[in-house]
Amino acid sequence: MNNQKNNELPIHIGIDLMGGENKPDEILRSIINFKNNYSENINFVFFATNDLSSKFTDIEKENNISLDVVYTEHSISMDENPLLAIRRKKKSTIFEGLRYLKDNKIDAFISCGNTGALTTGANVILNKLKSISRPALLALIPTKKNLTAILDVGANISFDADNLVQYAMLGAAFQKSLNINKPKVGILNIGTEQQKGTSHHQNAYSQLTKFDDFFNFVGNVEGKEVFEGNADVIVTDGFTGNVFLKTSEGLASFVLDKIYQNIAKEEKREEIFNILQNLKKRLYFGEYPGAILVGLDKIVIKCHGYSSIKGIISAIIETHEFVKNNIILSIKSYLQ
Amino acid sequence: MNNQKNNELPIHIGIDLMGGENKPDEILRSIINFKNNYSENINFVFFATNDLSSKFTDIEKENNISLDVVYTEHSISMDENPLLAIRRKKKSTIFEGLRYLKDNKIDAFISCGNTGALTTGANVILNKLKSISRPALLALIPTKKNLTAILDVGANISFDADNLVQYAMLGAAFQKSLNINKPKVGILNIGTEQQKGTSHHQNAYSQLTKFDDFFNFVGNVEGKEVFEGNADVIVTDGFTGNVFLKTSEGLASFVLDKIYQNIAKEEKREEIFNILQNLKKRLYFGEYPGAILVGLDKIVIKCHGYSSIKGIISAIIETHEFVKNNIILSIKSYLQ
Repeated sequence: MNNQKNNELPIHIGIDLMGGENKPDEILRSIINFKNNYSENINFVFFATNDLSSKFTDIEKENNISLDVVYTEHSISMDENPLLAIRRKKKSTIFEGLRYLKDNKIDAFISCGNTGALTTGANVILNKLKSISRPALLALIPTKKNLTAILDVGANISFDADNLVQYAMLGAAFQKSLNINKPKVGILNIGTEQQKGTSHHQNAYSQLTKFDDFFNFVGNVEGKEVFEGNADVIVTDGFTGNVFLKTSEGLASFVLDKIYQNIAKEEKREEIFNILQNLKKRLYFGEYPGAILVGLDKIVIKCHGYSSIKGIISAIIETHEFVKNNIILSIKSYLQ
Repeated sequence: MNNQKNNELPIHIGIDLMGGENKPDEILRSIINFKNNYSENINFVFFATNDLSSKFTDIEKENNISLDVVYTEHSISMDENPLLAIRRKKKSTIFEGLRYLKDNKIDAFISCGNTGALTTGANVILNKLKSISRPALLALIPTKKNLTAILDVGANISFDADNLVQYAMLGAAFQKSLNINKPKVGILNIGTEQQKGTSHHQNAYSQLTKFDDFFNFVGNVEGKEVFEGNADVIVTDGFTGNVFLKTSEGLASFVLDKIYQNIAKEEKREEIFNILQNLKKRLYFGEYPGAILVGLDKIVIKCHGYSSIKGIISAIIETHEFVKNNIILSIKSYLQ
C-alpha cells in the first residue's frame, strides 16, 4: 500500500485492528477502500494478532496489494486490567504499536482498544512533555460557538490540583496550535463560585488565576454552560470527563430519537429527516475523530471501543491533519 | 390563605422565598395565583427576610388575603460557605424553615437557595432515617422508558462505597414507594466492567451484588446508557451526579436550539414547533419539580437556583403528592 499520490512524503499511521467492537478484517477492508479514494499520501501499518494472517493474505490477493502488518502474539480485551496486561502481554498490538511510535517507524498510532492499557503503555513506553506528569485524553465537542477541547475524558481516574493545572496548559497549547490565540480556559464544576467542588478544584482555581499571559482563565463552568461555547478548554478529572462525554452522547441520541418518532407522524418529513440526520452526525460522538492523548511527544489517538468504521476513518483524517501540521512540535513550543 | 377546598385536611407547605434567581414578591404572587386556581387544599407558610414585610403587606391588601409569613433576620446567598452560614445565620429562611419542619408546623419545605446550606442544615436539624449516614439529593430524569431516579445530584462532594450503597437503598425505597416493585439499580461509571472506576466504585459494586431480594442490581451503567431507561435507580457521587444533571440540561437545550434554528428555514413549521416545544418542556430540567433530599424523616425539596416560577409551581404540585402519599412513611417501611 505504498503508492505515491502527490509530491509530499507519505505519512505513516499505525492502526490497531484489535480490541474494538468492529471485526479486524472489516476495518481493514474499509481502510483499503478509503485509501484508494483519498487524495493524500498515507501509508498504513496495521497491528493484529497472528491468527488473522491467513485472512489478511486473502485480502492482499483479492486487492492485489501488499499490506504492512505487524503480527503480535496477544491482543488486550476491553475488560483486562491494564497493569496486569502490561506485564503479561508485552507482545500485544497496543504495546507493539506504541514501540513503533517510539522508534519513529510510524508518525501516529490509532487504537479503539482498552483505554487503560493504551494510556498506561504510553506512559511507560513514550516520553512525556516537559512539566507534564500525566498525559490526558482530550476530546473536541461541538458547542453553540467553536469546538471546545475537554480533558481529561478518561486517561486517569484519580487526580489532584496539579493535574488539573497541567490539563489546562495542555488544552490551551492544543487550542493555540489550532490558531486560537488566547484560549479561554474553565474548570468543569458544580457551581461557578470559587469555593465550589473538592479541595483539588479550589486549589486548581487559585493556581489558574495566575496564568493570565498564557490563557484567559474564565473560572468554573457548570455542565449546562459547556455547550454555550464560552470556554475553548474545559478541564476536569478523567472520571467526570468520561461521564460528561458519554452522557452528552446518550442524551443527544435520546433527544434526536424522540424527535424522529414525533416527526414521523407529520407530513413533509423528508426535509426534516435530512436536517436531523446532519445534526445527529455532528453530535454523535461515536462518529467523532476520537480523543487525542495529549502530554506525550508523539501522537496517540483513542477511538471509542464502539466507534463505527466511519468514526475510525474520520479519526484517520484528523490524525493525518495533526501529523501534517506537526501538532506535537507546536504544543511543545507553547509549553516552553 | 386558609380557604378549605375539599374535605381533606389542608397540607402545609413551607416555601423559602429567598436565595433563588426570582424576586421573592414575584414568586409570592405566582403562588397566590396558583392556589386560587388549584383544586387541592394547600396552606402555604412563606419564609422571607424582614425587609420584605411592607411589600408583602401590600400584596395582602391587594388580594384581600392574609399570608402566613415567617420573617427572618438573614437569608443565605448562593456563594456563602454553608458551614459559616450555619454558625452565623441561625435566623435565616433556610434554617427557620427546617426548624418549622422539625416541629411539624409544616409537612414539607421547598427552597431554591444554597444547596450546601440546605443539606448541612437538614443534617443538623432533622433526623436521618435508620442506617443512613448522609442524605442525598434525588432527581427524576426522563428516559426512553420510565423516569429514572438519580442520586446523589449534589448534596455531598466527598463519598465512599458505603455512601453509594446507602444511595442505592434510598433510591430503591423511593422507587418502590412509586410502585416499582423490584427496581433495577445501577452505578454510574466509565465502563460496564466490574473493575471500572475508583476503589469506592469497585467496592460498592461487590456490596450491591448482595442485595438481590431488595432490588435488582444491574451493575455499572455508562452515561450514554442512562437515557435508555434500563435502570430505575442510578447511584453516583454528588459531584459527578451534579455534572451529569447539568450537562444533560445544557445539551438538551443546545440540541433543541439547533433544531429550532434549522427548522425555521422550512415550511410547515408550526406543527414542528409545537412538537419541539412539548419535548423541550419535558427535557428542560429547570421546569422539573426539583430534587428531593432523601434519607431524612421529613420532606425537603431543592429547586434549582435558576428554576423558573413555573418550575417552582411544579415542585409544589410534586411535593403535595409526596405528602398526600406519605412517601416518608413508605420509604421508611422499605428500609426496615
